Amino acid sequence: MPILKGIYPPIVTPFEDQEVSYSQLSNNIKKWNEFDLTGYVILGSNGENAMLSETESLNVLETAIKYIPDDKQIIIGAGQESSKLTISYMKQARHIGGDAFLVVSPHYYKDQMTASALLNYYTEVAENADLPVIIYNVPKFTGINLALDVLQKLGTHPNIIGMKDSSGNMTYFQSLLALQLPGFQLLTGTANTLFPSLMVGAVGGILALANIAAQHCLDIFRLYQQGNLKEARDLQLKIMRLNQLTTTEYGIGGLKFALDQIGYFGGEPRRPLELPNEKGKAQIRTELKKLSLH
Amino acid sequence: MPILKGIYPPIVTPFEDQEVSYSQLSNNIKKWNEFDLTGYVILGSNGENAMLSETESLNVLETAIKYIPDDKQIIIGAGQESSKLTISYMKQARHIGGDAFLVVSPHYYKDQMTASALLNYYTEVAENADLPVIIYNVPKFTGINLALDVLQKLGTHPNIIGMKDSSGNMTYFQSLLALQLPGFQLLTGTANTLFPSLMVGAVGGILALANIAAQHCLDIFRLYQQGNLKEARDLQLKIMRLNQLTTTEYGIGGLKFALDQIGYFGGEPRRPLELPNEKGKAQIRTELKKLSLH
Amino acid sequence: MPILKGIYPPIVTPFEDQEVSYSQLSNNIKKWNEFDLTGYVILGSNGENAMLSETESLNVLETAIKYIPDDKQIIIGAGQESSKLTISYMKQARHIGGDAFLVVSPHYYKDQMTASALLNYYTEVAENADLPVIIYNVPKFTGINLALDVLQKLGTHPNIIGMKDSSGNMTYFQSLLALQLPGFQLLTGTANTLFPSLMVGAVGGILALANIAAQHCLDIFRLYQQGNLKEARDLQLKIMRLNQLTTTEYGIGGLKFALDQIGYFGGEPRRPLELPNEKGKAQIRTELKKLSLH
Amino acid sequence: MPILKGIYPPIVTPFEDQEVSYSQLSNNIKKWNEFDLTGYVILGSNGENAMLSETESLNVLETAIKYIPDDKQIIIGAGQESSKLTISYMKQARHIGGDAFLVVSPHYYKDQMTASALLNYYTEVAENADLPVIIYNVPKFTGINLALDVLQKLGTHPNIIGMKDSSGNMTYFQSLLALQLPGFQLLTGTANTLFPSLMVGAVGGILALANIAAQHCLDIFRLYQQGNLKEARDLQLKIMRLNQLTTTEYGIGGLKFALDQIGYFGGEPRRPLELPNEKGKAQIRTELKKLSLH
Repeated sequence: MPILKGIYPPIVTPFEDQEVSYSQLSNNIKKWNEFDLTGYVILGSNGENAMLSETESLNVLETAIKYIPDDKQIIIGAGQESSKLTISYMKQARHIGGDAFLVVSPHYYKDQMTASALLNYYTEVAENADLPVIIYNVPKFTGINLALDVLQKLGTHPNIIGMKDSSGNMTYFQSLLALQLPGFQLLTGTANTLFPSLMVGAVGGILALANIAAQHCLDIFRLYQQGNLKEARDLQLKIMRLNQLTTTEYGIGGLKFALDQIGYFGGEPRRPLELPNEKGKAQIRTELKKLSLH
Repeated sequence: MPILKGIYPPIVTPFEDQEVSYSQLSNNIKKWNEFDLTGYVILGSNGENAMLSETESLNVLETAIKYIPDDKQIIIGAGQESSKLTISYMKQARHIGGDAFLVVSPHYYKDQMTASALLNYYTEVAENADLPVIIYNVPKFTGINLALDVLQKLGTHPNIIGMKDSSGNMTYFQSLLALQLPGFQLLTGTANTLFPSLMVGAVGGILALANIAAQHCLDIFRLYQQGNLKEARDLQLKIMRLNQLTTTEYGIGGLKFALDQIGYFGGEPRRPLELPNEKGKAQIRTELKKLSLH
Repeated sequence: MPILKGIYPPIVTPFEDQEVSYSQLSNNIKKWNEFDLTGYVILGSNGENAMLSETESLNVLETAIKYIPDDKQIIIGAGQESSKLTISYMKQARHIGGDAFLVVSPHYYKDQMTASALLNYYTEVAENADLPVIIYNVPKFTGINLALDVLQKLGTHPNIIGMKDSSGNMTYFQSLLALQLPGFQLLTGTANTLFPSLMVGAVGGILALANIAAQHCLDIFRLYQQGNLKEARDLQLKIMRLNQLTTTEYGIGGLKFALDQIGYFGGEPRRPLELPNEKGKAQIRTELKKLSLH
Repeated sequence: MPILKGIYPPIVTPFEDQEVSYSQLSNNIKKWNEFDLTGYVILGSNGENAMLSETESLNVLETAIKYIPDDKQIIIGAGQESSKLTISYMKQARHIGGDAFLVVSPHYYKDQMTASALLNYYTEVAENADLPVIIYNVPKFTGINLALDVLQKLGTHPNIIGMKDSSGNMTYFQSLLALQLPGFQLLTGTANTLFPSLMVGAVGGILALANIAAQHCLDIFRLYQQGNLKEARDLQLKIMRLNQLTTTEYGIGGLKFALDQIGYFGGEPRRPLELPNEKGKAQIRTELKKLSLH
């Protein structure tokens, strides 16, 4: 069972003329490899997994794994609408490699995703996964927030090792920590709450922002570990605006635009996702400068 | 360009042991063929399209088309998260047959589905579709309600022939009708608002309820056309509860349970979707009896 | 028990220099009296009741009643957060006159407004009201939508004679009508759904738009009664945009600006409510012209 | 200008037979006075201010002030729907005493509470207040979340000294702190986020939970100040459940029931607010025991 700890970027998938660019993917990874990141999430929300065919998705995984050193953890984004499709996808991905699956909640039929439906789904998936499963709670994309009593049950499953919580809801996050589920490792899924999440018990974060500001994220984690809490807090406040711009406000388009500004390959997201408008670009440039990333 | 008019069931996809049952699909279609339905939606939300692999999806379409008489319109559910995947899917489906595509809005990255993103998406899709496109607005699943000014632009595209609106929001529906877009045909997407939608200008409905109560839906349409509005209204009020139970409250599981009660094959939906609990089953049975469907 | 039927404007309360202008109130009423309106709602949401002291509120009522002919019904807006305050207010208002109270749901503590809390509230209020009570369901202001099973119980109370539903939700409205509560009279609370609501069983409407377009609202009602449904529907679609601008989009400020354009006194709403910005004013003027109200 | 710091309970208003019990109010205050609380909020949301007449409200204030020692700060809940009513209320309250006003956003006409409306409202109120103003942001009651750019402007007003933020949204809270408004003091408005809020820069908290667990709240604050962060965090997690039960889940009824269990006077809230059902009572008793409060 992988020990989750520290910072993981959910890496973007680069496109050229709307086609996956495997060479730009490998170039980016080589650059990220220079940081002290614990590992990577491949094919998460920020990896535009939802925009890819299954074949593309598996090819991205295969390429990524090739360029990631053995000492880095590899977490594979998974999660389709049906148990059957999710399990089938995991079987194929497993042959390629990786350390764990990050499984998003099914959400198209959100009214029907009752406590029992979600409990059964994650149980079935965990039982059929050849790698440990990390639950992925991301209400802003799914419209679903996993209930505490469901997580209390899932948290004891031997093949479910933790959760990425992108809700940004600290009441929820602390309520979950208060359950003290043994061995259930909690990662925050947004740089918005990295520092406070660490303070209350998160083991680390899967952070879109780590695509473009890996060192800042790592510094917050290190300062926290060293007990330099005032500095950690100051840095946390400094990254808020850039994080908002490249997630909530302009999404993956914003993140990719920022990557292009700092020497990585960003390019265009797959349509209908868009690059930011001129105002957004200017705002992002301003924040990159403030953080000396530009 | 197909003239949209009357009642279309978005037909369910039957499973046995979680595998698509093509024989039960054809049996159901043969029964539905006995009604005066204008046509069918294959692979819509109620067809559990989101739960199927692309191969399964195309096989369902192929089977369905085989059993549907030539004089019935066939509307094919489509719509993936990226323009690329949607267009690729439409190319394959087109070889099989059908009269129009019903294209749901991309929605995973809902914050980024700006007016321009959606306008560009539907335009690109329409330009690359070999069949006419019907826009599918279904906020309860997507979390997105297409803006009127976007629809005003899309409504003039030669290959976009109308919209299925499942919002149930009559203010929105009438505001859209008030735009008087020439040739833009509006279908209601819920039996909850069939009668009032017809009264204000809908040409018909794509109605989950028509899976189990086709004649009731057809009767409301006929009574409306004949000007027997008091009767149409009374029938509309009579179907409200059954419709709620088999859509909002128990979803596809509820619909499939009802099918099993009335001589069709319902079976289990694909997991994590569930059949109703005992209370739900009893409620559905009660309403089926009230409508003499049991 | 008053028979509710036809069109009622919830009249605005005019201010000059932020003080209630009783003379402008009477002038407006004299103009509205020229229409075939069934009656008036005094001190409803559009009457800025929430912005007034209790003394001002009672003075407005007293003035209004003086200028309203005996053959017009007077419905008095009521509803504070506690049963005690609501009942106390009704006792005072009752001495002044009127035919019924329109009682909004308490809503500040919305999480605590359980089915039993609301059931008990309306029951206690109805039992202590010296006039018949009309329930006022207005989720856009209160964040609360009264549940059908609560209304089913309240609908049998001898002193509760009906409901004004401003939800605009036709599924809800028809589901309520389907309960067939004897003597429970349903009014729509928004011109957005006047025609479809009448078609399914509403007895009339309490419509902000009737402040500025009384004749259009009356015409829709008359055409509906005469069975000229095509004309009623066309007129319904024509008023949609003006209604949106003077309710949802610019609210009471929009409504008051429109009144000023058509020979009534609108003036400024009480702060922090505002008049529309220049764009809004232009939009409203355009729509007034389209309806020949300017 | 009062220095805001530490823990403030927003005290409940006791009722006997639905009438304010001034004697029970004074008894409770005497007990709370034994704690090292910085001060009190009188007539906040938990004080059921919305349920009281203006006369009752002023009487509660007068009584409370009599029993509160001079070295405790007194913050007075204020905020009606119109600027005029708010200012009029503040004038009357000012004669009684107190150190600051806590002013909730107007919210009945929530669609119309634009940035300019709220900016103008708080500016007008601050300019007419004889005491410093603390902004009160409480989306769960008002449906409104004050925008950062509005706060950036309000934060520089000489008579606006800070904000109580009950949103529980740490992204928002940190984004506001990141603006570094000089002299703008931020209090968290929920014990759910006390510890993480302190860690990122809150000066203290106005906490419903401090009505029943003042010492626990004070301990978290003290441990935080002493740098015993592990202990502070453990205590924070321990109070989560009781806080949820006595705020979000059962509200003021839950809080009052808890008070009755621990030697204070709780009594019934004013109707339609209710005491918890039997399940809720048992849950609260269990949590009180866990925290040795019972």
